[in-house]
Amino acid sequence: MPSHLALLSCLLVLLLSLDKFLLHYLKKRLFSGPRIIPSGGASKSRRSSMAAAPKWSETAMLVIDMQKDFVDPAMRSPMLVAGGEAVVPAVAEAVAVARERGIFLVWVVREHDPSGRDVELFRRHHYSGGKGPTVKGLKGAELADGLIIKEGEYKLVKTRFSAFFATPLDSVLKTAGIKNLVIVGVQTPNCIRQTVFDAVALDYDKITVLIDATAAARPDIHLCEYTCFHIKTIFLLLEI
Amino acid sequence: MPSHLALLSCLLVLLLSLDKFLLHYLKKRLFSGPRIIPSGGASKSRRSSMAAAPKWSETAMLVIDMQKDFVDPAMRSPMLVAGGEAVVPAVAEAVAVARERGIFLVWVVREHDPSGRDVELFRRHHYSGGKGPTVKGLKGAELADGLIIKEGEYKLVKTRFSAFFATPLDSVLKTAGIKNLVIVGVQTPNCIRQTVFDAVALDYDKITVLIDATAAARPDIHLCEYTCFHIKTIFLLLEI
Amino acid sequence: MPSHLALLSCLLVLLLSLDKFLLHYLKKRLFSGPRIIPSGGASKSRRSSMAAAPKWSETAMLVIDMQKDFVDPAMRSPMLVAGGEAVVPAVAEAVAVARERGIFLVWVVREHDPSGRDVELFRRHHYSGGKGPTVKGLKGAELADGLIIKEGEYKLVKTRFSAFFATPLDSVLKTAGIKNLVIVGVQTPNCIRQTVFDAVALDYDKITVLIDATAAARPDIHLCEYTCFHIKTIFLLLEI
Amino acid sequence: MPSHLALLSCLLVLLLSLDKFLLHYLKKRLFSGPRIIPSGGASKSRRSSMAAAPKWSETAMLVIDMQKDFVDPAMRSPMLVAGGEAVVPAVAEAVAVARERGIFLVWVVREHDPSGRDVELFRRHHYSGGKGPTVKGLKGAELADGLIIKEGEYKLVKTRFSAFFATPLDSVLKTAGIKNLVIVGVQTPNCIRQTVFDAVALDYDKITVLIDATAAARPDIHLCEYTCFHIKTIFLLLEI
Repeated sequence: MPSHLALLSCLLVLLLSLDKFLLHYLKKRLFSGPRIIPSGGASKSRRSSMAAAPKWSETAMLVIDMQKDFVDPAMRSPMLVAGGEAVVPAVAEAVAVARERGIFLVWVVREHDPSGRDVELFRRHHYSGGKGPTVKGLKGAELADGLIIKEGEYKLVKTRFSAFFATPLDSVLKTAGIKNLVIVGVQTPNCIRQTVFDAVALDYDKITVLIDATAAARPDIHLCEYTCFHIKTIFLLLEI
Repeated sequence: MPSHLALLSCLLVLLLSLDKFLLHYLKKRLFSGPRIIPSGGASKSRRSSMAAAPKWSETAMLVIDMQKDFVDPAMRSPMLVAGGEAVVPAVAEAVAVARERGIFLVWVVREHDPSGRDVELFRRHHYSGGKGPTVKGLKGAELADGLIIKEGEYKLVKTRFSAFFATPLDSVLKTAGIKNLVIVGVQTPNCIRQTVFDAVALDYDKITVLIDATAAARPDIHLCEYTCFHIKTIFLLLEI
Repeated sequence: MPSHLALLSCLLVLLLSLDKFLLHYLKKRLFSGPRIIPSGGASKSRRSSMAAAPKWSETAMLVIDMQKDFVDPAMRSPMLVAGGEAVVPAVAEAVAVARERGIFLVWVVREHDPSGRDVELFRRHHYSGGKGPTVKGLKGAELADGLIIKEGEYKLVKTRFSAFFATPLDSVLKTAGIKNLVIVGVQTPNCIRQTVFDAVALDYDKITVLIDATAAARPDIHLCEYTCFHIKTIFLLLEI
Repeated sequence: MPSHLALLSCLLVLLLSLDKFLLHYLKKRLFSGPRIIPSGGASKSRRSSMAAAPKWSETAMLVIDMQKDFVDPAMRSPMLVAGGEAVVPAVAEAVAVARERGIFLVWVVREHDPSGRDVELFRRHHYSGGKGPTVKGLKGAELADGLIIKEGEYKLVKTRFSAFFATPLDSVLKTAGIKNLVIVGVQTPNCIRQTVFDAVALDYDKITVLIDATAAARPDIHLCEYTCFHIKTIFLLLEI
């Protein structure tokens, strides 16, 4: 189909030109130095003030939905995010860097009632007989192998895409003095993006999404979200 | 630049194949018959129950941000959505159909304090001297020419992308018995999409976005949002 | 002053007559018949429609904060609600009646991070060394002896007074078709009252608080909340 | 019963001594010096740090519901708060002091749709024929005579008791650096108290209610709210 060709060509160009530059560029920024990429508040006048080193104590990393039902194909969950498993190492690396820098780590997970009564309407048919995706207490709700919550880190349970929707996250972050967010996990067009946009609405200052520590069910959508939207939308549109 | 070529080819394919089919297909559905396109809750088992004619009394149309500063180039507003002016007639047509069917009309507008203190952080630099985009009482906050609020329709003031964020909209809709939403206005990747996703989070049943009665600052982003995401995301990803 | 006299006479009458009449009157209503006491929506015109038997399937019972740290003196918690232990049997009785009638049971509990970072500011000094009131996983967060959550019932974790604040409770209740609430637990002037008022704000229809299945740190405050405020406020003031 | 006796003696003492002492004591604190009465965060350890002069730039005054339909008997509104008119001068005085000190002034008002569709359920029967209490644009929604909004002050429209419920108030205050609140207006057991408790839930630091610049429909309820609850509840109960 023609639209597939378009997406394919789009994808090829991205793979060739973008990967080497943009993806690792963003990662490098977080990992190697004190500057982070602003997404929510980058007017020219504010950018200059970013030359000063940010205080890592004002930054939190949100690790979103890195649970077995979302990233481990062995679970055979209907909620599996195809690209999820591949980014587990990148997420683990990001978490390690965050711990090293003293960045506040928030582990955002879905944990649902066995009945599914706290799930979005369009997903409730997945729940029956006390089973379903990321039911509290079942294996599918556990973090992916290799990821663990250490003492002093915060576990936040959510029931919708956005980590801020109907949760105490904003209070936990604001009273901890957090102004900047770095976001990793799955999946890009839903939970990642909704969390980013709610963070913008809730007046966080700088919001960074690590492209190669996030993933979507389909790689073209993941890439397109950043190339068509985040880079060109958050930076161009949100900046006007 | 290569990525531009990719977007261009993507766009061309979309213009050739999509326009005639998808755009008017959705419109036709709303205008000509009782069936509407579900976005939020289309599991197979639920689809069958949609064969029954929906009650229009359970449907509301949200007209989002159709204000002069967003759609009228003569205002020279930094908030101008390039594609906005072109869809005013389509929005007016949708509104007329909604009135005919007795659909509850909600006019969602931004109205900001002259100081800009209730605007998103990244936009506050646009406000000074009591002026700025869609300041309450100024001409830029008025509805685009040709659009008027009639008696019995509801005006909702918001200060963020989503029409549900920090507003009484959910209460107004739910206590009016509204279960389904039809959304028109500007702009696609921000206010439209955030309103759609919040509506999903807030358990609305069927959510329809009229592609050709919505617009973005750039047509490729507008189209891509629907083709890469809404059609392929809301329908494919949200359905799983 | 006349108003002072009124308050005094009001008090005397209450002391003499209230305990035996009002407290058990409300209880009797819930336990013995299909009528429940409306608090939130009792205009004259709507009252008449209440003659019809309500559907218990549209009613939920919220059991609030019946945790060891709040009601069990043996825990020696700074959060102990003095009157809490005495109402455990009444709460258990109310729960039994609710189960019998098929009323949806929601067990609202506080569970806090060991650091106290998700607690109200004015209570954070109670948390140190991984200990503090109702810390998740510790004994103090468990339900009081004699109260258990059965299959099919819902456990809701909150971090503030109101059961609706920053939780998915409203979504869980509304998508379950719940319109009416019955509230038991501790403590009257804080968690009970804030939950009631948020329920009013969120458009629940009939809200009933069982006076003798609720309690406060001080009995005079508990009584006064109902006699001066709930009965005379919700019924007289809210009704105007 | 002892608790009844306690309540009775408490009442007598209050009648004799409270008016002259407590009411003006609080007022004096705000008006005459830099110290303000904390309600939300007064653990002993934090109190000592309050010896330092607070910055008025971190304090906002919320003037709540001082509209003709609530405080002007001539409007013959069913929403009239009997004690409201008497406190207009005290509110005006508080506003003048706030302006002098550079305290950020927020004028919180109700403005409802003529249909009443954005009013609490229990009040909707007051709306018909495009009329009803504090309908947007009608005289009853105007501020009481003698009160005006000056340039640089913020008008916030709400539709429920709490000024924070479904409004952008928290964002406006937090992004303005506000940590402390002073609250005046009507009426004590509903809008005032709900705003105070939401402010506690939203992590504001010091919250002061000016007793004689607030009022209730009945003076006994107004007094009792403060004497039984605010003074003895916020200070004693909330502090534990």
